[in-house]
Amino acid sequence: MDGRVSHIALKEFVVLVFVKMGVPVEDARVTADVLVAANLRGIDSHGVARTRRYVQGLRDGVMLATPEIQVVRQTPVTALLDGGAGLGQVAGHRAMRLAMEKAANAGVGFVAVRNSNHYGIAGYYSMMALEEDMMGVSMTNAATLVVPTFGKDAILGTNPISIAVPTGRERPFVLDMATSVITRGKLEEYERQEKALFQGWATDARGVPTDDSTEVLLNMKDRLGGGILPLGGAGEDHGGHKGYGLALLVDILCGVLPGAGYGSHVYPRDDAGKPLPADIGHFFGALRVDSFRPLADFKTSMDDIIRMLRASAKAEGQERIFIHGEKEFEMAEQRMREGIPLHPKVVRDLRDIAEELGVPNAL
Amino acid sequence: MDGRVSHIALKEFVVLVFVKMGVPVEDARVTADVLVAANLRGIDSHGVARTRRYVQGLRDGVMLATPEIQVVRQTPVTALLDGGAGLGQVAGHRAMRLAMEKAANAGVGFVAVRNSNHYGIAGYYSMMALEEDMMGVSMTNAATLVVPTFGKDAILGTNPISIAVPTGRERPFVLDMATSVITRGKLEEYERQEKALFQGWATDARGVPTDDSTEVLLNMKDRLGGGILPLGGAGEDHGGHKGYGLALLVDILCGVLPGAGYGSHVYPRDDAGKPLPADIGHFFGALRVDSFRPLADFKTSMDDIIRMLRASAKAEGQERIFIHGEKEFEMAEQRMREGIPLHPKVVRDLRDIAEELGVPNAL
Repeated sequence: MDGRVSHIALKEFVVLVFVKMGVPVEDARVTADVLVAANLRGIDSHGVARTRRYVQGLRDGVMLATPEIQVVRQTPVTALLDGGAGLGQVAGHRAMRLAMEKAANAGVGFVAVRNSNHYGIAGYYSMMALEEDMMGVSMTNAATLVVPTFGKDAILGTNPISIAVPTGRERPFVLDMATSVITRGKLEEYERQEKALFQGWATDARGVPTDDSTEVLLNMKDRLGGGILPLGGAGEDHGGHKGYGLALLVDILCGVLPGAGYGSHVYPRDDAGKPLPADIGHFFGALRVDSFRPLADFKTSMDDIIRMLRASAKAEGQERIFIHGEKEFEMAEQRMREGIPLHPKVVRDLRDIAEELGVPNAL
Repeated sequence: MDGRVSHIALKEFVVLVFVKMGVPVEDARVTADVLVAANLRGIDSHGVARTRRYVQGLRDGVMLATPEIQVVRQTPVTALLDGGAGLGQVAGHRAMRLAMEKAANAGVGFVAVRNSNHYGIAGYYSMMALEEDMMGVSMTNAATLVVPTFGKDAILGTNPISIAVPTGRERPFVLDMATSVITRGKLEEYERQEKALFQGWATDARGVPTDDSTEVLLNMKDRLGGGILPLGGAGEDHGGHKGYGLALLVDILCGVLPGAGYGSHVYPRDDAGKPLPADIGHFFGALRVDSFRPLADFKTSMDDIIRMLRASAKAEGQERIFIHGEKEFEMAEQRMREGIPLHPKVVRDLRDIAEELGVPNAL
């Protein structure tokens, strides 16, 4: 399993792992597909490296292999889903499909999910809508790592927002962004490389900006204060209050609206300190563009604005203006051809899991 | 008209100005209400200071006093409105009311608007939804002042997003943010005060960050290159590509989706360089929270997350954590009591308009 791994072999392996953990094969396929899609797109922090955490969650019983996913309430254009404390990918995929069905019939569909878990990359679900020429929306709340503007403690998650928009000949627009200035993955990368953090990325236990990644990661782990700053950085001078507002908005739509955990109520523990189900929430949407404008016209204009941006003059020293999703589409094409490079630590982890579960390590 | 002016007197004055320009009295009332609401909330750049520009637009015939506002296409949950090149406030108010009517009946309503004009503060429309305990969404595209990440030229507007969410006993959550790191108003403020711009706010004609507000404003005016940076600043290190993505998303929803102007197609000119109707677009939404969760439960949780954030530990040297909209609500309460302080230049402008139009200057 050294070097590069084929995404097909990797997916098959992950399916077997989850099936062995008692997850129904269709649900295992969805989960593996979301994880491997992250690796393909170059977002390795949300890829198969997560397998260990999910296996552990299933073993501890805080995540259920065969959840009862229920539609609690619905209208022709909305639904509330209970994820039954199962894998976030399974609830997420079900919810996004339901949003798209509603949009297909009524023009618009929104589905909020409570009692779920980590669902992987937000962009997987928004991009599902592209298959039917709809706009897709996907958001989730997450573990508290982000400090509000002027705050010391992490009360919000990196709470990503993803919006996917269909195009004609150009690649789709796929915005998929944490509402924080960076993610925990970036902190870990800087720690490994022993590089100083940029000012405006994270704060120490007093809530003051620091360049020390190790300190920030330890403080976050032990909840000693500080954390990642919202998009826009510290204070209000560079718009940190806007990133904070977007993070809070995601928590409102994903936590408050479906009645899931929000703020510091996510990943609760019992009185003895034992983890309880995470109660993560998600929010999905689908929108038919032809409710507003003929699809072909819409796609022509999307191609036009993309080309206008790409062809516009570059800043001194720059060679290329990117459209959102473009880098990830290019990475996925490359990794489909050449295989996915896995970090040695992740390879060790997956080998250990294979051995523990008696899954053939055919990679 | 020196010192502070009562918001009621100011609104009456602005109504008379627009009526004198041929705007129907109900439309003039809506427009004046949106403008004065901006002053009340402390966003003076979008307040009555805009009156001159609107009067000029009506005189030049690029804005129409009695537009034919038409519902071009609609479903029970969506509509496309043509603003008829009238005042953006009139089209915006009509569109948001329509979105709310649809949401009242169906749970959700989205209305996109084409062929409109500057509509004032985005938050005015999103907050309309609060009166009926709905979430409100409001966005608009705008004149090109913002450079894409790695770009030299301004292709996007400051493209604001506003989302309003009802609460119980706490003040509503009202996010109302430009997707750029700062607005043009901030550049002008720094120029007046002869202060150096923060790095990461704006770029010069080569597309390189600069601290010279005068240079940036002149370059933007003459379209020589450079402009305001997206939220997240220059390059990708601080997430500038995220702000750029949000600005582009707003242009997609407000420009591409309704078939309005987008990118550099807004504020077009004819071959002789004469301004044509601006073809600005907007996007409005309303969402009934009780489609997902009983309203009382939702409100209780909203109050809870607001209190959780407000009560959480402060960063060293900080005394208060704000919720979005809070500063503006406090400002509005103060200005309702004490009157609105107008800049001497704005007072002169309004006096000139009064004289030109023969409107009694009773302020």
